[in-house]
Amino acid sequence: MKKLQIGVIGYNSGSSIQISKSTLNTAYEVGKYIAKRNAILISGGLGGVMEYSCMGAKDHGGFTIGIVPHENSIQANDYCDVVICTGIGLSRDFIVAYSSDGIISVGGGVGTLIELCVGYMTKKPMVAIENSGGVSDIYGGKFLDERKRIIIETNRDPASAVDYIISKIRFE
Amino acid sequence: MKKLQIGVIGYNSGSSIQISKSTLNTAYEVGKYIAKRNAILISGGLGGVMEYSCMGAKDHGGFTIGIVPHENSIQANDYCDVVICTGIGLSRDFIVAYSSDGIISVGGGVGTLIELCVGYMTKKPMVAIENSGGVSDIYGGKFLDERKRIIIETNRDPASAVDYIISKIRFE
Amino acid sequence: MKKLQIGVIGYNSGSSIQISKSTLNTAYEVGKYIAKRNAILISGGLGGVMEYSCMGAKDHGGFTIGIVPHENSIQANDYCDVVICTGIGLSRDFIVAYSSDGIISVGGGVGTLIELCVGYMTKKPMVAIENSGGVSDIYGGKFLDERKRIIIETNRDPASAVDYIISKIRFE
Amino acid sequence: MKKLQIGVIGYNSGSSIQISKSTLNTAYEVGKYIAKRNAILISGGLGGVMEYSCMGAKDHGGFTIGIVPHENSIQANDYCDVVICTGIGLSRDFIVAYSSDGIISVGGGVGTLIELCVGYMTKKPMVAIENSGGVSDIYGGKFLDERKRIIIETNRDPASAVDYIISKIRFE
Repeated sequence: MKKLQIGVIGYNSGSSIQISKSTLNTAYEVGKYIAKRNAILISGGLGGVMEYSCMGAKDHGGFTIGIVPHENSIQANDYCDVVICTGIGLSRDFIVAYSSDGIISVGGGVGTLIELCVGYMTKKPMVAIENSGGVSDIYGGKFLDERKRIIIETNRDPASAVDYIISKIRFE
Repeated sequence: MKKLQIGVIGYNSGSSIQISKSTLNTAYEVGKYIAKRNAILISGGLGGVMEYSCMGAKDHGGFTIGIVPHENSIQANDYCDVVICTGIGLSRDFIVAYSSDGIISVGGGVGTLIELCVGYMTKKPMVAIENSGGVSDIYGGKFLDERKRIIIETNRDPASAVDYIISKIRFE
Repeated sequence: MKKLQIGVIGYNSGSSIQISKSTLNTAYEVGKYIAKRNAILISGGLGGVMEYSCMGAKDHGGFTIGIVPHENSIQANDYCDVVICTGIGLSRDFIVAYSSDGIISVGGGVGTLIELCVGYMTKKPMVAIENSGGVSDIYGGKFLDERKRIIIETNRDPASAVDYIISKIRFE
Repeated sequence: MKKLQIGVIGYNSGSSIQISKSTLNTAYEVGKYIAKRNAILISGGLGGVMEYSCMGAKDHGGFTIGIVPHENSIQANDYCDVVICTGIGLSRDFIVAYSSDGIISVGGGVGTLIELCVGYMTKKPMVAIENSGGVSDIYGGKFLDERKRIIIETNRDPASAVDYIISKIRFE
C-alpha cells in the first residue's frame, strides 16, 4: 500500500552559501519528475533545494512531505502537503534518509552529507546531480567508506536521475 | 498548503492488553470520518487502533501517514500511504503528537498517555473516545497537570469527535 | 563497572509554575542523599528541581549528569559535572528515564509525567516525594495505566526515598 | 563546573571490518591520555575503538561516558562509568558529537563520518589519528564541505592529539 517515496536533499536557503539559480532550477526539475512518475517527494521541508523541489512537484500534481527539525510547521516551506514536525533538530536528517526508498542530492553542505551517509548505511539507491555543486559534486561517484556498500551515482539529468532511482527500487 | 493532520492514538496490537472488537471498530470509524472530512490521518503506523483507523480511512478514500519507531517500513501496517521511518524508537511518540493538529485517542496504554502529554504541552485539541478503555477512560475529561493548559475532551461518537477537532483547529 | 544512576525529575524553573522554597529544598536533599549513597545523579540538567538536586549532590561530593534538550551546554545549570547535549528537544525526557536505574520525582508538570511514563514502561523503581506538589502528588501511589506494571511509590523523606530506590535496584 | 569532555569515535567491533590490533592499541592510548589530562571520555559506548579507548581511560584513573543507541545498558562495554541510554538508535551519533568539546577519530566507517560531520557543523576541534584506517585516513586533513568551516586535523601520536584538542578548547 505504501507508495514510492523519493528523498530530495541539498542546500538549505538558510545556510551561508549562495545557491545559484541553475541549482534551484535543477531542484525544481527533480521535484517535477518525481511527481510525473507518481512517487511521493520526501524532503527536510525547509528552503532552498527542499523548497524548489517541492514547488516542482506541486506544480505537476505531486504529493510532498516535509520532515522539519522543529516542533511545529511554522518554518516549513509553502509546498508541503504534509509536515512531519520532529522536534529533534538536525537529527531529523536520519529520518529523511530512513524514510526515502531512494535519494537524489542537489548541491548541499555537510547536512546533506549526513543524509548521504545514512542512505549509504542503509544501502539506498542514491544519485548526485552533476554540477549542482557542494557535496553532490565532492562525493558523487564515490563510496563513502572502505566497505564500499553502495556508490553514489551521478547523473546530469533530473528525469534520468528519477528514472534510475525508480528502476533500482523496483528491482530490489 | 499543508492539509489538516489529525492524529489517532491508542492501543497497539503488540501490547499485553487484549483489545475488544468494539474498540477496534471505534478506531475504524474514527479513521473513516477523518477521511470523509478530507483530513490526513497521522498515526504511529503499527497495529491495533493504529491499523484499524488507517483501514477505516483507506476504505473511504482517505490518506494515511504512519510514523514508525523503526529504521524501515517492514513493521508498518498495510494501510499507510506514507511511512515515516524514524529509527528513534518510542520517542517517535513526540513526533506523532507534534505532527497532529488535533488528536483523538481510542483506549491506549502508557505510550498513548505520553502522546496525550505532548498534545497537552503544545495545547492541541484532544478528544478521548468514551468507553474505549485504557488511558482514554482514565484521563478523558481531565487536565494532565496543575497548569490546566487544555482539557482532554470526551465524546462517545467518532464522527462528532472528528468534527469537534476540526472546529477547534479552524478557530485557532 | 557502570555505577548506580538515579534520576531526579520535577519542576523546571522556566515553567509558568512558581516553585516553593520547600520543594527546592526537598530537591536539594534528594541530591544530597544520592551523593551520600555514592550513586550518580541523572537529571534534565536545567533549572528548578534539576538545579537544586545537582547542587545538593555537588555540596556533598557527588557526581552529576545533565541531559539537556539543546545542542550545546550553555543552558545547563552550574552543578553538572557532565552535560549530555542531545539536540533533540523535549524528547530527551525519554533519555533521562532510560538512563536512570531508578527515579525520584519532586513536584513537576507534564514533562515530569512523561518521564514517569517512560519509567513505568521500562518498570524502573520510582518514588514521588509526598507534598512536593504537581504530578508527584497527582500520580504518586498510582499505576499509570490498566496494565499495572509498576506503582509510583510515595515517600515523605528524601533519604528514605533514595534508600528505597537503591534497595529495589540491588534486588533486581 | 562542567569538566572537559573529549569524544573518541571510530570502528565498532560489530561492523564488517576487521579492526587491526594496532588500531585498537591506538584507541587504548587515546583513552589513556584523555584520562591523564583529567578530561572525561565520551564515546558511543559499544565495542572496538569505543571499548579500547574506555579501557585505556579506566586503566589510568579516567572517567568514561558511553552514549548507546539502545534503551538500556546491556550492550554497553564494560569500561563505561556512566551509560546514557538514548533509545534513539544511530541518531545518537549527533549526541556523541554535540556532547564532545573536541573529537578524536581512530579508523571508522560511515557512522564515524556522521560524527565528524556533526563536529564540523558545530566547529568542534577534531583530530583524525594518521594510519588508523577507514574514514580517519580518507577525510583527515580535509574540509567536509565547501564552506571550509573547520579542518579535520591529523596527528600520528595519541598524546599529541589529546593535547592539541585540549589546547584548542582552552583557547575558545
